[in-house]
Parts: sequence; structure tokens; C-alpha cells
Amino acid sequence: MPTTAMTLDEIHDLARAAFLNNGCDEENASALVETVVDAERDGSHSHGLFRVPGYVDALRSGKVNGKASPTVVRKTPAIVQVDGDNGFAPLALRRGVPELVLAARAIGVAVMPIVRTHHFAALWPETEAIAQEGLVGMACVCYTPCMAPSGGATPLFGTNPISFAWPRPGTFPMVFDMATAAMARGDIQIAARDGRSVPAGTGLDAAGNPTTDPGAILKGMLLPFGGYKGSALALMVELLAAGATGEHFSYEAAKEVEGEGDIPRGGEFLLALSPELLAGPDWVAHCEKFFRAFEAIEGARLPGARRHSNRMSVEARQIDTGLLEKIRSLV
Amino acid sequence: MPTTAMTLDEIHDLARAAFLNNGCDEENASALVETVVDAERDGSHSHGLFRVPGYVDALRSGKVNGKASPTVVRKTPAIVQVDGDNGFAPLALRRGVPELVLAARAIGVAVMPIVRTHHFAALWPETEAIAQEGLVGMACVCYTPCMAPSGGATPLFGTNPISFAWPRPGTFPMVFDMATAAMARGDIQIAARDGRSVPAGTGLDAAGNPTTDPGAILKGMLLPFGGYKGSALALMVELLAAGATGEHFSYEAAKEVEGEGDIPRGGEFLLALSPELLAGPDWVAHCEKFFRAFEAIEGARLPGARRHSNRMSVEARQIDTGLLEKIRSLV
Repeated sequence: MPTTAMTLDEIHDLARAAFLNNGCDEENASALVETVVDAERDGSHSHGLFRVPGYVDALRSGKVNGKASPTVVRKTPAIVQVDGDNGFAPLALRRGVPELVLAARAIGVAVMPIVRTHHFAALWPETEAIAQEGLVGMACVCYTPCMAPSGGATPLFGTNPISFAWPRPGTFPMVFDMATAAMARGDIQIAARDGRSVPAGTGLDAAGNPTTDPGAILKGMLLPFGGYKGSALALMVELLAAGATGEHFSYEAAKEVEGEGDIPRGGEFLLALSPELLAGPDWVAHCEKFFRAFEAIEGARLPGARRHSNRMSVEARQIDTGLLEKIRSLV
Repeated sequence: MPTTAMTLDEIHDLARAAFLNNGCDEENASALVETVVDAERDGSHSHGLFRVPGYVDALRSGKVNGKASPTVVRKTPAIVQVDGDNGFAPLALRRGVPELVLAARAIGVAVMPIVRTHHFAALWPETEAIAQEGLVGMACVCYTPCMAPSGGATPLFGTNPISFAWPRPGTFPMVFDMATAAMARGDIQIAARDGRSVPAGTGLDAAGNPTTDPGAILKGMLLPFGGYKGSALALMVELLAAGATGEHFSYEAAKEVEGEGDIPRGGEFLLALSPELLAGPDWVAHCEKFFRAFEAIEGARLPGARRHSNRMSVEARQIDTGLLEKIRSLV
């Protein structure tokens, strides 16, 4: 695939123009652009410019509010409640996370349920933002059902990602952000396009039979990673992101979705913890010694390390030229 | 294996005698007995009477305090700090959990780090106790290193279990309690005893080579379930149970362990959430509708359902006769 070299500034300007010219106000555009640029900066292409056409479709459809003004309410000393005003998640997060950080710093733990939002990006930007404030961050969302619980053959769960970030003052946090599905939907689409099979256990066909044919899985359903254990985690994500926020479970969100490109409304659950208040002032030295023991193991790599290494690159980023042309046509 | 039928009352009395005659005071014995009886009641034999000889060994060695008097301090409105006084976890939990429940009910979320404790049981008793109060419960512990991070061949993690319970007023909570290891150590021991091989991916031999020989894995190391994703979760457990409590990481606990039966000192991390405060009064109806959608899927089973079904049995429990004789010899 031909690619075009772009600086992060060029990526920023292109994304900004696409959002501003399709119904976003300055503040919403700025928050969305940051998400896109940070993804390209970290080599996380599937959450960078690749998502812009989807954002634009949703804006043009009128289903997502490009001028949303999310509200943040401290419901209790430990609950920061955010109403996304039917916009995309990044502005809701930009307004809510600083309040979540203040709450967790004050009393050691706080949660932030977000309702009436449309999450269309990775989760690591928010957990990493929490960790950069010296706190532990956790986040999860659930969306359209495309995954069957272990043992079943009916899609009920979304791909149900969960992200966790541990603060490491002076260096990048440890961050993971993973679907509880055996494989990301995008990777199955790529396998189908390239005519490759996928590992057994990735999914079922529409009749509920195990298959390694990615095309059949796309018409059927995904399975959780790691069998019944991954399935239990997907269930936990569903309960936290919907049950604990009062927002849509995946199967409820599905009822609002009309086309393939539709971005369903949903909730997000965030949690922040203060290791300083929980474990006392020695926590950094204690944990860094553990991280050194981990890093001394040949072949073991801390989650997030590859992304952080990409971040350090001062080179231009290589962007798919076809995608670039498509985005330019939307500006 | 020959078994002997015992009522739950008989199991209670036998366990109580074993603990009282080996250095426990009434209160510690009572908390330990409850853990043992509840496990046998639920058909969870590996955490029932099976553990009594291990408890007794630890008491006799003097390494665990059978007369521990755990202290509970509300450090902030959201942190309930428990010092286990070097005893077994059940009394620390019995004293701490009611305070954790009060804190989470008042402000929506609270955490309970336990230090100086010896956890030698399942985690579901504490998360289920939290859920029975109408709150979401989460718990994790880490102990002696026996599992390599994904990609590595040096044991760093414990089997690092995590438990999560969701309250369902009027019925049993949804509860899972799972090791982040591919297989529990006990199941590998049983496979070795029976001369069976275990699935690929369960563990490595002492030289770090993949093997399906359970004996070689016992001399080597376990692997996380689900590859790098399970490994990331094992890392999260390690950080919460040790980093966020200030207690031993698995590799630190190992330095205190001298023999196979030794129970290392460690920490436990608990979290409780109020869905009522987070999501509002409709949360029960909203979530029960979701559980009905789950239960309508043929072949899918809610985590914990088998244990709760065992609980309802009014029959005597079948106890391994050899184990029974061993425990009687300890009384």
C-alpha cells in the first residue's frame, strides 16, 4: 500500500479541518484531534486518521453532537458524574478527568461514570492521562454485540475492552488496553481481505459453528480470549460500563444502530486510585524495583512499551495514501 | 477414593477442633471455620477441609499468628486500611469488610488494602459478602512466584487470582474467582498424579521449554491464561495486591518461604462500588434484564452458578476419607 509521510503537525491540521468542516465546534474538534494525533504519534494507526471518516459520517448523520458541551458533577466526594451531551467521548474526558484526578488525590479512590457519549477511540489515552498524574487508572466500555459468551452461540457482548495504567514517575506509565475478544474486529477484517485464516477459538459462524474463516466470523460472532475466563471478564466490562453507569448494555445499544458505520451511544466507566494514599510514600521505590525485576526477564515486555517507543520517534509518520485522499475529500 | 458422608455441622466441628487445638483463639478459629464450611457447602473442595492440614502446619510453625487481632482504620472516607496482625485473612476480612461496605454505601466507592496477612483460601467469600450487601466487590492477591510473564521463562507472578461479584438482590450474586494462570497449581498436581498431560500453553519446564508434562511444569513454571492478555492481567493483580497495598510482590514473598507447605505473608486489595449511587435506583431492573438476556443463551452459564447450585443441596457432603483421618490426627 502506498503511504505518504506526514508530520504530526500536518496530521493535526488535516484532522482539525475535517472536524471543523463537518459540524464540530472548536473545543470538540480540539479534543478529537488530540486523540487522532496521539494515536498516530504512538503508531496506533487503527485509532488515528483511520477513524476520521467514521467520525465524519457520524457527525454528518446528525446522530452525534459535534457541539456537545459535557457537564461534570461531583455527586459525592468519590463520584464524578459526566453527561456527554451526546457528543464524542474526548471532550467529556477532557472535562471530567481533571475532576476525577482531584477526587482520587483527595481521598484515595474515585470513579467517573460517563453517560450519553459516543466512544470511538482507544482507552489508553484516558488511563494514561490519569497515570501521568501519579494515579492508577482503569477504564472500560461496551458497545454493539458481536461476541458470544463462552459456551453460547448468540452475540451478547461487545469486544469489551479494558484498560489499566500504573503510574511510573519519571518514565512512561505501564499501560494495557485490550479487547476481551480473542481478536479485534479490524484484524479479522484484514485477515478476510488478505485471504488468511484465523486461529481456532477466534469466533463462530452465523450458525454457531467454530470456524477459522474470518469472513464467516464477520457474518457470525467473535469469541472471548482465553475461553471462560475471558468471557467472565467481558461480562465484568459489560456490567461496569453499562450496569454501573446506567447506560446501554451492548444488546441495548444495538437497537439504535442502523448501518455498519453507525457509532452507538454508550457509557464509560473510569476509576482512579492513589497509590500514595493507599500504600504510603515508599510506593514508587517499591514498584520500580518490581518493574526492574520484570524487565530483567528476557523476552518479557511491559504492556505499552512498543507504543511508548514509537512515541519517541521524531520521524514523519507514514499514512496510507488512499486514506489521506479520502479524508481530504471530506474537508 | 473412599469418601465419608459428613453434615456441614460435622465439618464445622471438626475444623473448629483442629484450629482451637493448634493455637487459634475462638475468634480466629470461628472465621477460619466459616471459610472451610462455606467452601464444602459450595462443593469447592480444594478450599475446604483440604486446606486444614496447611493451616495447622502454618500455625504449628509459629509463622502465622492464631491469636491475631486485626485492626481497621478509616484512613480517608474511601480507604479502609486493615492490618492483619500476621494472622490468616478470614478474621481480617470479617472485621474489615463491614467498614468497607459502610464507606462504599456512603460515597459510592471504597477500597480496602490489607497488609500483614496470610491468604490461604478462595477470594469469592469476600467478594460475595460485599455483593450480598448490594455492592459490587472486587478482590485480588499475589503470592509465591510460580508463573512467567508471557514471552519470558522466569517465574515472577503468583497464580494471581482476581474475583469480581455483582449484586443481584433476591438471588445469588454473579461471582467469578479465577487464577490468571492457565491452570490452577492443584489441577496440575492432580494431572501429574494421574499421569495425564496438560494442554499446550499451560506451562514451561525448568529450562523454559514448552511442555505438556505436568511434572515438568511443577518443577518449572506456569504460564498465564490467554497469552499476553492474561499476562497483563496477572501484572495488574500483582500491582494492585502489592503495589497498592505496600505489601510483598510475589518475588518478595518468596524470600520468606522455606518449605513447600509454607504460607507466605502478603497483601490483599479489595474494592467495593455502589451501583445505586453510581447508576441510580433503576440499576436492579436494568441489570436483571441483561442477566435474563444472558441466561436465555443456550450453553452460556453465569460464573458462580454451579457453586450456588451446590449450595442449595441439603445432602451430606462427601469428604475424602484419607483427608478426614489426617485432620482427625491433627485435632
